Amino acid sequence: MDVSRDPNVNQAMCPSRLILEHVTSRWGVLVLATLLGRSYRFSELRREVGGVSEKMLAQTLQTLERDGFVHRDAKPVIPPRVDYSLTGLGKEAAEQVWGLARWTEKRTDEVFAARAAYDESKERTAR
Amino acid sequence: MDVSRDPNVNQAMCPSRLILEHVTSRWGVLVLATLLGRSYRFSELRREVGGVSEKMLAQTLQTLERDGFVHRDAKPVIPPRVDYSLTGLGKEAAEQVWGLARWTEKRTDEVFAARAAYDESKERTAR
Repeated sequence: MDVSRDPNVNQAMCPSRLILEHVTSRWGVLVLATLLGRSYRFSELRREVGGVSEKMLAQTLQTLERDGFVHRDAKPVIPPRVDYSLTGLGKEAAEQVWGLARWTEKRTDEVFAARAAYDESKERTAR
Repeated sequence: MDVSRDPNVNQAMCPSRLILEHVTSRWGVLVLATLLGRSYRFSELRREVGGVSEKMLAQTLQTLERDGFVHRDAKPVIPPRVDYSLTGLGKEAAEQVWGLARWTEKRTDEVFAARAAYDESKERTAR
């Protein structure tokens, strides 16, 4: 086995790092975690993921679609209807970022307490 | 219980979103996942996380320290020695991004296959 060819995100030029960056991108995380619940139409998804622009959401979905995480289903109806859902691969990624999102929400108070302690200790040192 | 006050990363102004962005930042992910193995000195960590600049690593470590994820231990020796390790809270975050990093490495081939199929289908449409 050629160990040097195994993907390693800690290597600057390894393609796995770019995949990790897509999954953990600002909007990628939120889109994946949201799609874990169910499939969404574009406008619905945009309402759900607060603050995302149309352009950024379209770009994020395209990147995730190209990576094989998101399935884009354009229904041949009038008016046009496009649904976005997770593929099997996307579900695996989404489960992990979903866990991370929920963990972050749960730990927000602890992080705030840590920041207050950090700022207080810096202030004390500066005095 | 006031549900509206529960942290929710999908709300643009929710502070939990910024914490999630720290944990999933380009270098935050790699630093947390690397520190899960053991504690590191600054220069060691910089060698381990390929491609990070001194400035970005210092900034990342400071953000993670302030959030309560990383412990900075400056030993009173000559020459100065500073070790970085995870706190209990940081270990929780690191376990999740570690899983995500390993998953990404494992799935790199699948993502490449998906990209090839996507590009091929786009090309066919363009013809």
